[in-house]
Amino acid sequence: MNYKLLIQYDGTDFHGWQVQENDRTIQGELERVISTLEGEPVRVVGSGRTDAGVHADGQVANVILSKPWTPLKLQKAVNGNMWRDIRIMNVDEAEDDFHARFSAKQKTYIYRVINAPVMSPFWRRFAQHEGRPLDIARMNDAARLFLGEHDWTAFASARTDGESKVRNVRSFNIRSTWEPRANAALVEFEITANGFLRYMVRSIVGTLLEVGRGERDLEAVQQAIFSGERKQAATTATAKGLTLHRVDYD
Amino acid sequence: MNYKLLIQYDGTDFHGWQVQENDRTIQGELERVISTLEGEPVRVVGSGRTDAGVHADGQVANVILSKPWTPLKLQKAVNGNMWRDIRIMNVDEAEDDFHARFSAKQKTYIYRVINAPVMSPFWRRFAQHEGRPLDIARMNDAARLFLGEHDWTAFASARTDGESKVRNVRSFNIRSTWEPRANAALVEFEITANGFLRYMVRSIVGTLLEVGRGERDLEAVQQAIFSGERKQAATTATAKGLTLHRVDYD
Repeated sequence: MNYKLLIQYDGTDFHGWQVQENDRTIQGELERVISTLEGEPVRVVGSGRTDAGVHADGQVANVILSKPWTPLKLQKAVNGNMWRDIRIMNVDEAEDDFHARFSAKQKTYIYRVINAPVMSPFWRRFAQHEGRPLDIARMNDAARLFLGEHDWTAFASARTDGESKVRNVRSFNIRSTWEPRANAALVEFEITANGFLRYMVRSIVGTLLEVGRGERDLEAVQQAIFSGERKQAATTATAKGLTLHRVDYD
Repeated sequence: MNYKLLIQYDGTDFHGWQVQENDRTIQGELERVISTLEGEPVRVVGSGRTDAGVHADGQVANVILSKPWTPLKLQKAVNGNMWRDIRIMNVDEAEDDFHARFSAKQKTYIYRVINAPVMSPFWRRFAQHEGRPLDIARMNDAARLFLGEHDWTAFASARTDGESKVRNVRSFNIRSTWEPRANAALVEFEITANGFLRYMVRSIVGTLLEVGRGERDLEAVQQAIFSGERKQAATTATAKGLTLHRVDYD
């Protein structure tokens, strides 16, 4: 039976999604626990990798098991054997041909920034701190330049050579809301695309933060997009602000 | 000069507010850093102690320093020398007779509960988990019984002997809101009084959670209040759900 898992994790204490020999990873944790339940090694397939320090409140994975489980029993058995920084929020039985990565139609990431003079301790794991004022309207103007199908070479890791760098950004919205616990503005960058290159969201957010601080104009953003030159994009924003929010399937 | 400090802390990795010989405490951290800046030992006076694991997004303290500081410079110097789970959010110059504890008129605490089958990793430090459904309206009915001036012996630590146990609860409201990151209901108990006994909020919340789960009726709550018997109150709710939210002065 093929099971579809909905997963949340606080990525702070993980070395990313992908299983590694000696480091704690999300895939590694899930495979360790589910393999023990199954009695033999299993492979957990994620919708995509997340980097070290990146969080998820809507990661999706699938796993094929020979033992029959009701979804609720599988969920409880897995959660009961993991640390509390990773949780299976839901389990569904899936079609045999469901594949968490290949079946995905689009993904949504949210990047969070606390915009205030002092960084609240309550957000230090889950948001980047920006002490200078951010112009939200200007950042939204710049965000519109990222909509549509483009080659995103300028906003990708150099390590992604070989594959196509064309992706379709379907929506991109930046909002600021008051976060009472932080006593600060919480700025959320929400971006949806049919796929993302490595470091793409963090590189785009880093560039838009320059726009928000008044250090870069819209023309320079446009130029960075069309140049395809990594050096025209800004520094990649820190991993801890990034959360994989949703994966959509047919 | 007397300085008034507004402080936030994630209480998870502290042994409470009060300075201790060998354990990390909030008062201990502040006194260590400010004493170094001052060049001699200083005493930081808090509005009151918080127990191990309890958080604050609005703790107030004062400290008398002989060196002259602008409030912003003092704030930056202290924050620059502390771990990021404690932050000075604001510094004001205060009147000479301002005393963070004796001048306080009332305090507000918020107790947070995630009410959902599975506990989101994003809230595991800051909220208690309740998997069974909670009846918010019933809990609000019960909360009204706690309003006004009473002897709160039944809802206090046995260790508070000797002092008066009379406190005036001025408002008490329980609300449930949707928390998108947790994909769950976030239930917040907000209670204001002219003062609180040790364990008072957590003991009241523990009792109201029994009401919310349908395990205790309003008559039994009323009886617990008037009995003055500790054993009639429910188990104290866990520390991590509790946050000191505000301290009011004239």
